[in-house]
This record gives sequence, structure tokens and C-alpha cells, in this order.
Amino acid sequence: MDRFSSIKAFAFDIDGVLTDGSLLAMPDGDILRTFNTKDGFGIRTATDNGYPVAIITGGCSESIIHRCHSYGINTSDLFMLSKDKIADFLLFCERHSLKQEEVAYVGDDIPDIPVIKVAGLGVCPCDAVDEVKEIADFISPYPGGKGCVRDLIEKVLKPAGRWQFHPDKPWSGSFPENIVKFAGLTGRNI
Amino acid sequence: MDRFSSIKAFAFDIDGVLTDGSLLAMPDGDILRTFNTKDGFGIRTATDNGYPVAIITGGCSESIIHRCHSYGINTSDLFMLSKDKIADFLLFCERHSLKQEEVAYVGDDIPDIPVIKVAGLGVCPCDAVDEVKEIADFISPYPGGKGCVRDLIEKVLKPAGRWQFHPDKPWSGSFPENIVKFAGLTGRNI
Amino acid sequence: MDRFSSIKAFAFDIDGVLTDGSLLAMPDGDILRTFNTKDGFGIRTATDNGYPVAIITGGCSESIIHRCHSYGINTSDLFMLSKDKIADFLLFCERHSLKQEEVAYVGDDIPDIPVIKVAGLGVCPCDAVDEVKEIADFISPYPGGKGCVRDLIEKVLKPAGRWQFHPDKPWSGSFPENIVKFAGLTGRNI
Amino acid sequence: MDRFSSIKAFAFDIDGVLTDGSLLAMPDGDILRTFNTKDGFGIRTATDNGYPVAIITGGCSESIIHRCHSYGINTSDLFMLSKDKIADFLLFCERHSLKQEEVAYVGDDIPDIPVIKVAGLGVCPCDAVDEVKEIADFISPYPGGKGCVRDLIEKVLKPAGRWQFHPDKPWSGSFPENIVKFAGLTGRNI
Repeated sequence: MDRFSSIKAFAFDIDGVLTDGSLLAMPDGDILRTFNTKDGFGIRTATDNGYPVAIITGGCSESIIHRCHSYGINTSDLFMLSKDKIADFLLFCERHSLKQEEVAYVGDDIPDIPVIKVAGLGVCPCDAVDEVKEIADFISPYPGGKGCVRDLIEKVLKPAGRWQFHPDKPWSGSFPENIVKFAGLTGRNI
Repeated sequence: MDRFSSIKAFAFDIDGVLTDGSLLAMPDGDILRTFNTKDGFGIRTATDNGYPVAIITGGCSESIIHRCHSYGINTSDLFMLSKDKIADFLLFCERHSLKQEEVAYVGDDIPDIPVIKVAGLGVCPCDAVDEVKEIADFISPYPGGKGCVRDLIEKVLKPAGRWQFHPDKPWSGSFPENIVKFAGLTGRNI
Repeated sequence: MDRFSSIKAFAFDIDGVLTDGSLLAMPDGDILRTFNTKDGFGIRTATDNGYPVAIITGGCSESIIHRCHSYGINTSDLFMLSKDKIADFLLFCERHSLKQEEVAYVGDDIPDIPVIKVAGLGVCPCDAVDEVKEIADFISPYPGGKGCVRDLIEKVLKPAGRWQFHPDKPWSGSFPENIVKFAGLTGRNI
Repeated sequence: MDRFSSIKAFAFDIDGVLTDGSLLAMPDGDILRTFNTKDGFGIRTATDNGYPVAIITGGCSESIIHRCHSYGINTSDLFMLSKDKIADFLLFCERHSLKQEEVAYVGDDIPDIPVIKVAGLGVCPCDAVDEVKEIADFISPYPGGKGCVRDLIEKVLKPAGRWQFHPDKPWSGSFPENIVKFAGLTGRNI
């Protein structure tokens, strides 16, 4: 699994990767998604340990922006309404001075294929479409939204000695506006 | 599978077909539904490649209207509050100058039976009620909301050489009002 | 299955029976539930064919009221915030001049036990708690929220020749306020 | 199972324990969770029978506050935005004059490990991460959000003769503000 050892950053599709593909349609046209707490802990551990993380999705919702902030993802690394995912992937690499072979990408459907082909490690969940499974470097044993992202992050960070937790690092740094909003509810000093 | 090759359009029930039958009941009486991203990609690929698509449902919600627009479905091909599904099915055929044997229909419960009988290809998900499974031309290996629609569309479009993707075709054409709403959030030029 | 043939009415618990037990907690303290379209079709068919139907639940939400109306359940047969379910069950029987042995009840947990014991047919989903399964007259092959109610209704109505559908009966009769609200959206003449 | 007999109080993580780990991301940054009715009945039975119950979570939402109130959990025993879970666990013990070996704790991921180690009974759902399963005193046969909490509570309360129900105790005591809100809807005298 030598490809895992060269990975220095991650890029993720959302629907079918960070979620099981479910889209809750709201009356105002917005689409709400169900994320997974274990995947989320994995992403936050990656960003806390200095790994750049990008989100590249055709979707768009304020709910996605908030979720990514809580994961410690930079606004400039969140690519919503992405039509040409490879352009966004290469822009992410350039901004962080990364070679594309240093970045792992996880996708599950047709629009992800070009990026899976050029990424250093092209990954898909076990319930990806056949066309994606045929070309992926690694098919996760987990389906989308049920741990495939957590599994990949552990496979990269653990051998690198960077699966480390920072209890002293306040995650208030990740989504300060929410903490302020909720701190009053709890009466806790954060 | 000769029946698949004659299909030129699609009509879908929603509950139990585009969803797994779950209905999230809201305090104002609205019902919210959970759609599937892979099914959605299939429908948009069908409309992008010129296949008329109808939705025929007994339900009614603004959330359905927005979802159908994002799939590239014409407002006039969205039949909500349908009591007599066959009348709506035939109206759809007439408007698009289609013979009923050229249209595939997917349904899962008693109200769908009359349309499944007259459609060119009567399809149901594998978790349809027994009465429907007994008369369907094709029982999908997938349950409702979990890929039965995507599977059908691929079975029709691929042999016809029309499972084609148009990265240059902006899907802003499909739901312009949402794109405008969210473009400001992303700062992207769409 | 002689007990099925004597049933003239139904009473249902909600959580774990009409749902899989999931409770979506909202910020205002309301609890939203996910109902099942096939169960719902069964209940509406029961009320359309003249069977009284009661809902007896410890929960309470406007979302429940709307859902029951759409199923054709009378407001006076909807017992929310029920502490002593047997009192509500007997009141339902009295109002409709039913003997308790003519009413089937479906429940899944401790508070349902007294009613399951006195009902003409005490039913539980296959994922009910052990104490309930031990005393139920009939354990459905289906879990809560996934068809146990539909299955029971069919088992009662079909032998009685009352599993009949009324396409001419507008279900606008069931939830007129919603139809009016949504009719404007669709432009359909209802 | 001697450890079960010494338990006098419970402390629970939320995500992956009281839920299956699903996080519904809302447009305003709030995160909504799906709780389980059978687990909830177990917790309320514990508090009704005098067991102190704490919630210790890294999350924060008004929806959590309401849910805990309906379970009969004191506001001061609800620890949201918890960074150092062991400090909160020990504070809970101190406030209720409990030794830590008298308290059962259920958690599923890395941040729960320190508490699982010091609790009198360290429990995890069967879908906890490997690191947690390796050190837990008891791995529940149930996954998170699907009965692991109910199962634990029954294992403690039944042998102690305290798996008792109080139909005369109005649970309006648990969440009075909601009862008042909804009582008007039902017209019931509560």
C-alpha cells in the first residue's frame, strides 16, 4: 500500500461519499444532507494535523459551508457547483503547492472519474457505480456515508504517526460563530 | 430485452420509486422526501440527452417541484395530486407525440397498476407490493430510492448510445433560480 | 386466523409501529417522524372502506395531526399525550359502539401491553420489545415503519372483500386544507 | 456480570450512542439528530426511578437540550461542547456524590476512551471504533441509536427491581413547556 504513504492531502466528493447519497429536498429548493460523525472526526483530525482537505461537489447549500467549517476546511478549499471537477482539483493542488500524486481523492459516480484517474490515490466507496470501481486504485470496504472517509484517513495518518489528537486545541477555532451562538445556551465558559 | 430498445421517454411515481417510501411529516402538513443522488444523476442524464421525463404522483409539495426542475423535468410534465394516473400518463404521451409503447413507467403500489399495464415497459422496484410485481414487465433488482431508476435509465440509454454527459452544458439551465441564490455564497462565477 | 375475521376497527401506536422508532429532534422541542407510504395507503384504504381507525400515542406534534387527517382519521380518534392507553382505547370503542374484541391494536413497547392484552387482536411488529412479543396474539413478519400496519390491514380487509379502492372518491375529502394550499402551486383543477 | 449490579447512575455520549452517528446539517449551521424511541423510554424509566443520568457530548444544539429535558435529565447534567470528557464525568460524579465505579458510561469513539477507562462500567455499541471496543468492559450486541442504551439500562434496573413504570407520574413533569404548547392542539386536559 505504498500509494497511501505518499499522500499529503485529501479531496472529497460529498454525495455518496460523505453521505449515503440521500438528499432531503426542502420546500425552498435547498437540499439537506446527512453526514456521519465518525467520518467527521476523521476529517477534523486530518485538518488538525496539518493535512489540507478539499471538498469538490456539484451541489451547493449553506448547510455544506457550515459543515466544512466545522471540519476545519478552508472556505477557499470548498468547491461547490463544480462542473469540471478536475480544474478544481488542480487549483487545490496548486494553491497548496501539492503534486497531484500527493493527493487522495474519493468519489463515487461519473463526474468523479477524471479526478480519480489523475489523483495520487483514487478511492471509491464500495457502493460506487461500476464505472468508478473499475478505475479506482482502492475500493473502500465501507459504503458512502458509513466510514469510507474515516477508514482512508486512518490508513494515511496512522503509518505517518499523525493520527494525533489535540485536546488542548479548542475546536472553537474551527467554527467560532456556532460556538458563540450556542455558548449562551449552555452557560459554559468556552 | 427488446422492450428496452423501443423506449423513448420515462414516467416515474415518486414515493417508493424515487424514494424508499419514507415520508417526513412536517408541522405545517407538508411532507418532505429523501431522494437519491445516483438516481438523480440518471434522470438528469436522460433529460440532457433529450428524453422526455414525467413525474406522476398522488403527493404534492413545493419540494417536489424544485427537485424536478433540478432534474430538467418540465413543469407541465410534473403531475402532482394525481388521482387517475392513467389519464396523466396519456396526456404526457400526447403532449410529446409518443405512443404509450414508447414510454417506460416505474411504480410500486396499487394506484400504479393501470399505468404499468399500458406502458411500453412496466417496471417496479424489487420492494413493490405483490400485486404490482405480478404484472410488471421488469422487476428491478434494486429497491425504491436505492437505484432502480438509475438502473432502468442506463439499460435504455447505453444501448442507444445516449448515455452521454455534457460537461459544457451548464446545469444552471436546469434550476437557474437556485444557482443565483447560491452563487453569492460561493463567490464563483457561474 | 379466525381472530382476523372478527376485526371491525384498528388502533395504532405511532413510534415503533407507524415509524421505525426514529425521532428527529428539532430546535424548538418538536419531534418529527418518518412515516411509510405503503402503510399510509393501507390506512387510507381502511378508512375509505368504513373502518374506524384510532391513533393512541404518548407523543404530541402538529405533524401527527396533519398526517392523521391525510389518512382519513377523525380528530376525535387521535389520542396524543396518552398516559393510560387503555382508557383511550376503551373510549374509542365506546364512541364507535365497538366491542373491544372487534378492534385490532398494534404496539411495540411497555406502555402498549395493557391494550394488546384486551384488544380483539393484539399485534406487534417483529422488532417489538420482548415483553410485548411474549403476549401478542400476532407478531408481524415486518418491523415497525416498514409494512407491519399495511400487512395487518390487508389480512383483515381482503377476506372481508373490503380491500377496495375508490378512484372516484376525492381524497381532497381527507385533507382539504392541504389540497387548497398546494392546488395553486400545480395549477390543477381539484 | 457483577459490575452491572454496582451501577447507580449513567452517563452517555450522544453521536453514535444515542444516535447511529447521522448528523443532519441545517442551513443555519445547526446539526439535527435522530433519536430512538425505545432508548428514550429506557432513559426516562431510569430517571423516573431515581437514577442520575448525564449526557456528555462535543456537540451543541437547542434540539439536544429539549430532548434531554423530555428524558428527565437535569440541565446541569447535560454537558455540551465537552472537550475534556473526563472532567465533565468527574464533575457529574461529584455533584451526585457518586464514586466513579458506580457510574456506567457509553461511548463509541476516540474522545470517549478516557471516560470508558475510569467508569465503573465502560460500555460501547457494537459499531464503535476498534480502539474503543478493545478497552470496553462490555460491548453491547446493539449498534448506536438502535437499542444499546435501552439494553444497558434494562441490565442494570431489572436485577435491582427498579425497572418500574409510574403511570400516575405525569411526564408533564419532564417537559412542561412542550406539554403546554401542545395541549391546546389536542384539547386534552393534562
